[in-house]
Amino acid sequence: MNYQISALIFPKRGVLDTQGRAVMGTLVEMGFRSVRDVSVGRFVRLSIEAEDQASALSTARRICQELLANELIEDFSLKEGDLSL
Amino acid sequence: MNYQISALIFPKRGVLDTQGRAVMGTLVEMGFRSVRDVSVGRFVRLSIEAEDQASALSTARRICQELLANELIEDFSLKEGDLSL
Repeated sequence: MNYQISALIFPKRGVLDTQGRAVMGTLVEMGFRSVRDVSVGRFVRLSIEAEDQASALSTARRICQELLANELIEDFSLKEGDLSL
Repeated sequence: MNYQISALIFPKRGVLDTQGRAVMGTLVEMGFRSVRDVSVGRFVRLSIEAEDQASALSTARRICQELLANELIEDFSLKEGDLSL
């Protein structure tokens, strides 16, 4: 069966978020003075063939650990299904 | 008052997702053969000072339209609060 897994990868608290800083600086220059903080991360949708949800999530976890996230400076979180806002 | 707004920026359907393709190719090489599709986007947390939630969301929308998203090839969605997975 095919499972959709969403992964969010973002800087660990306390680690300098260089992208966030760069966006923040640009926003202030553009006149967006009401912005107090910016944090930038990555969002990955994985479509995984698996026996069940648990094994799809476990494959997604290994993918994050082995490729997508640098666990020295990043955290990641996983969710079954698409990320709807 | 300070509002947390989460923005997800991702490739429009039908637009070639070059990052997703690159990740997919690497995963297959690494032996992750159960992965059927990968889509990669950006996730931005904005902390915005505003009168109310509606004006914080409207500022976030302008920020996405003017800086964060290339609306020719990307869609974005917004949500008040942090993105919890």
